[in-house]
Amino acid sequence: MDVFDGVENEVPGELAERLRTVGLIDHHVHGASAVRVGRAEFEASINEASTAPVPEFMTQFDSPLGLSIRRWCAPVLGLPAHASADEYFARRSEFAPAELSSTLLAHAGVERWIVDTGFGTELITTPEQLAALSGRPASTILRLERLAEELLESHSGADDFVDRFRSALDAAAQSTDIVGTKTIAAYRTGFDIDWARPGDDDVAARARAAADGPGPLRLQDPVLVAFGVHEAAERGLPVQVHVGFGDRDLDLHRTDPLLLLPLLRCMAPVPVLLLHCYPFHRQAGYLAQAFDHVHFDVGLAVNHLGTRSVGLVAEALETAPFAKQLYSSDAYGPPELHLLGSVLWRRAMGLVLGGWVRAGDCTEIDAIRIVELIGAQNAARVYGLGR
Amino acid sequence: MDVFDGVENEVPGELAERLRTVGLIDHHVHGASAVRVGRAEFEASINEASTAPVPEFMTQFDSPLGLSIRRWCAPVLGLPAHASADEYFARRSEFAPAELSSTLLAHAGVERWIVDTGFGTELITTPEQLAALSGRPASTILRLERLAEELLESHSGADDFVDRFRSALDAAAQSTDIVGTKTIAAYRTGFDIDWARPGDDDVAARARAAADGPGPLRLQDPVLVAFGVHEAAERGLPVQVHVGFGDRDLDLHRTDPLLLLPLLRCMAPVPVLLLHCYPFHRQAGYLAQAFDHVHFDVGLAVNHLGTRSVGLVAEALETAPFAKQLYSSDAYGPPELHLLGSVLWRRAMGLVLGGWVRAGDCTEIDAIRIVELIGAQNAARVYGLGR
Amino acid sequence: MDVFDGVENEVPGELAERLRTVGLIDHHVHGASAVRVGRAEFEASINEASTAPVPEFMTQFDSPLGLSIRRWCAPVLGLPAHASADEYFARRSEFAPAELSSTLLAHAGVERWIVDTGFGTELITTPEQLAALSGRPASTILRLERLAEELLESHSGADDFVDRFRSALDAAAQSTDIVGTKTIAAYRTGFDIDWARPGDDDVAARARAAADGPGPLRLQDPVLVAFGVHEAAERGLPVQVHVGFGDRDLDLHRTDPLLLLPLLRCMAPVPVLLLHCYPFHRQAGYLAQAFDHVHFDVGLAVNHLGTRSVGLVAEALETAPFAKQLYSSDAYGPPELHLLGSVLWRRAMGLVLGGWVRAGDCTEIDAIRIVELIGAQNAARVYGLGR
Repeated sequence: MDVFDGVENEVPGELAERLRTVGLIDHHVHGASAVRVGRAEFEASINEASTAPVPEFMTQFDSPLGLSIRRWCAPVLGLPAHASADEYFARRSEFAPAELSSTLLAHAGVERWIVDTGFGTELITTPEQLAALSGRPASTILRLERLAEELLESHSGADDFVDRFRSALDAAAQSTDIVGTKTIAAYRTGFDIDWARPGDDDVAARARAAADGPGPLRLQDPVLVAFGVHEAAERGLPVQVHVGFGDRDLDLHRTDPLLLLPLLRCMAPVPVLLLHCYPFHRQAGYLAQAFDHVHFDVGLAVNHLGTRSVGLVAEALETAPFAKQLYSSDAYGPPELHLLGSVLWRRAMGLVLGGWVRAGDCTEIDAIRIVELIGAQNAARVYGLGR
Repeated sequence: MDVFDGVENEVPGELAERLRTVGLIDHHVHGASAVRVGRAEFEASINEASTAPVPEFMTQFDSPLGLSIRRWCAPVLGLPAHASADEYFARRSEFAPAELSSTLLAHAGVERWIVDTGFGTELITTPEQLAALSGRPASTILRLERLAEELLESHSGADDFVDRFRSALDAAAQSTDIVGTKTIAAYRTGFDIDWARPGDDDVAARARAAADGPGPLRLQDPVLVAFGVHEAAERGLPVQVHVGFGDRDLDLHRTDPLLLLPLLRCMAPVPVLLLHCYPFHRQAGYLAQAFDHVHFDVGLAVNHLGTRSVGLVAEALETAPFAKQLYSSDAYGPPELHLLGSVLWRRAMGLVLGGWVRAGDCTEIDAIRIVELIGAQNAARVYGLGR
Repeated sequence: MDVFDGVENEVPGELAERLRTVGLIDHHVHGASAVRVGRAEFEASINEASTAPVPEFMTQFDSPLGLSIRRWCAPVLGLPAHASADEYFARRSEFAPAELSSTLLAHAGVERWIVDTGFGTELITTPEQLAALSGRPASTILRLERLAEELLESHSGADDFVDRFRSALDAAAQSTDIVGTKTIAAYRTGFDIDWARPGDDDVAARARAAADGPGPLRLQDPVLVAFGVHEAAERGLPVQVHVGFGDRDLDLHRTDPLLLLPLLRCMAPVPVLLLHCYPFHRQAGYLAQAFDHVHFDVGLAVNHLGTRSVGLVAEALETAPFAKQLYSSDAYGPPELHLLGSVLWRRAMGLVLGGWVRAGDCTEIDAIRIVELIGAQNAARVYGLGR
């Protein structure tokens, strides 16, 4: 597999070679499928936004992502490129889950995974398993809302919640595995909340109310969300923020990253990583120019846009300094996604930057530097890797 | 006229041939001009957003749509491509209205018109006339707000409004002509209203208030708007929704389709057709991935963007499954618009999908399948045509 | 320097020649640096959105704008294209400020500067100095909020504020230097305010409150902002409006130009010039189609997007009539920006319109006409230049 198949003439040679070989840091990813999945489950897992089974009148293979799976993953599994959906699914089903993952991950060229463990189940690999299957190390991201829920669900309940939350973050800041935190405020409150740092008494009261609620605990008090982010930032922990594209449980318009302005202006200036961002990636790029501590990626969307990721990657290179963008796949489940994020990003970067070089708008050395910054160096700096 | 004039090398042969010949379902269109129009009227009719005459300092031909009319319609009327605006207008004025329509419609390659009759006047053709002029059948769409207004304007006024509205929808659901409904909430309330299904008593009271108002009845009570949509959905009738691009009577930012999320989550899951959508087409595509029943098109904008419709069509192929997008022109008045919607869409699809095929990102067979889905098959499924 | 270096084959000859030579009206610009600046100051001045020094971990040269400076400005200063950032900065530092400006401005091909003097300091040139350095005349724009502040800061304070503001505008309307006004409501209130024309008593009371406030006067009362705009419009003065892209003091989402709809609907219909507009340029283009008096540009962003300005210029040519778009650089400080705005716009227009011509979507004469309208003729009409 060559990521520049069919477009060789559009990507200058040295740039192409660097893009083929650069070891990426996938700075936001989840586990790969640890169990066999049926056709319906697989189709549902390649639709990000819906939370329902794919309806009978269609197949999710009829999508940009579906085309990309058939084009890029089929050959890795020994089929011709563009094998039919049925052929592809039959072939992938011949592999045991671990074998499928190790086969696909071997082609991703990812040097380090930074794994969000906040939504793990027994259906997907742990960071340790992902590292073993790929032969590459995995760091982890602590999801702030999940931490709060675990503390409130423990036998101590809401007692001393403020202190216990802080102690857990102190431990995280000392951990060598945990390199950052994440908030899913997008799913729990939207971004149009009061982001001022709350007082301890208010937090404690809200924690008690949350712990006393009926049914399974689902943290959605904006004061507790804001508390988590500020506490992480105070400890120097990078904060990943889910922004934009996601499943329909969120109100997409309430995840416009511009609504984070009050937070960005008042928080301790630790690295903030705006994740995904589609279709608000231009807004995210603007914030990355406006605030020293703001960074962003267009992960997840790169996969789901398939060949159209070229346009997305181009738009992501508009206003943000090149030191402020990162690579991620946001893959979850099918290891096709862990691979495709890398393939599609490399190809898109080659086509976009190759166009710049061919028009004389930058040198090939400039283009390679941009690839290295976004592909790995920025993430290494932000998360303190390799120090 | 060949829709691939000048770009023959960019569109693979079989894909090009399919795009030249595929019979489209124009799933949202209005009548063609039934009367002669002067230059000022014509210029105003090719500006969608303004509600005023075109100002003296300019001509509306100086626009992307104006360029496309001169390029594609002039040859159909026997002029060279790119004839001047004056030459073009003089030539079109030599035709009687019916002759002009039949001449232009003959080149549209539309197999079926689905006509919104909610804003018809004696100045445009009826669905029957459009069918006669084109030699192709026409189905109709029932505009919900207009239905309510007609009932309230009748001698019965607001008496038994709830029952009479339901009866009218029952009849529509039984009709062979009517294949769906439409809401213009965008123009009447914006989308940021309470979309919960209202109770009958509330609806009856609002209907009385509306009927008792001064002056001509203009339905703009959000409860009555929501009532109409829920009643249509309960009967299994597809619901078209005007979204985005339209005239300045609407508040464009209040027609972001993401503001429809509360409705999409609570309504009976009949097909919802988000119309036009520009500049919110990426948001519409996301909704089409997120909800089984949501579909969208980029009609109207394809015409008004002229040659730039290529970029629009590309962006519309980002996150939505290919089974969830439809073709429409939203033409109203000049039959140039009924033709151009088709020409520009075919050309744009050829350039976008042709690029995918040439880069090896999908097969030509895949591309043809996408054309057939969006051009006709999805509409046939959604509206139950050909069953 | 040839603005079509590297893309000669993509721009037809006559169009290219017209774009090389057309004398632009830069309808919104500021002064050039009048003093020597150090590296840190220079880097900060090529980041628009941040208000802080560029952080140590990066250089602002690693941005689209930085690449464009090295590509286009280096040769003008006698270096090879793509000279390194260090080489470039060392070279520019060899020039005295006036020499640097005159060297770079000589290549801008701007026939007239229309200078916003509302944020001038001794660090940048006056309009007279800019005219002298470039050999081209300068007109000026009166910033409405600054006028109000000056009146309130004078020894008369808030006494007779309404009358004095009106007298100042009467004088501006008679002035031959002042050709228009500007509002920075984007920075002071956002656009989501009550835009109805206020009564004199209300204005007078607000003026007293503003003058009595503690500390240096900063006009941010929405009534005073709306008052200024309506008074300018009543006198027939064009009104420039900062929209979108700007520094982080503004709330970007509250500068969506669609939020200006209430103003556009109720104001006297003098020319309104929506400035910059990124990333809301599609919304701005829509408003320019919807309202006779609305015009827009994509200045500032053209510079900061560097080579990606091609995509921006393409999107700006979607729905607005060609008579409703203008050229500006919005350069402030480094004279590189006064030059680059012109270079990048000419190049982008050549690539976009050249593509239209090559595909047969318009004639070369059409394309040249579009260039002349946007480059100069629309500004001449709007500001009454050359009458």
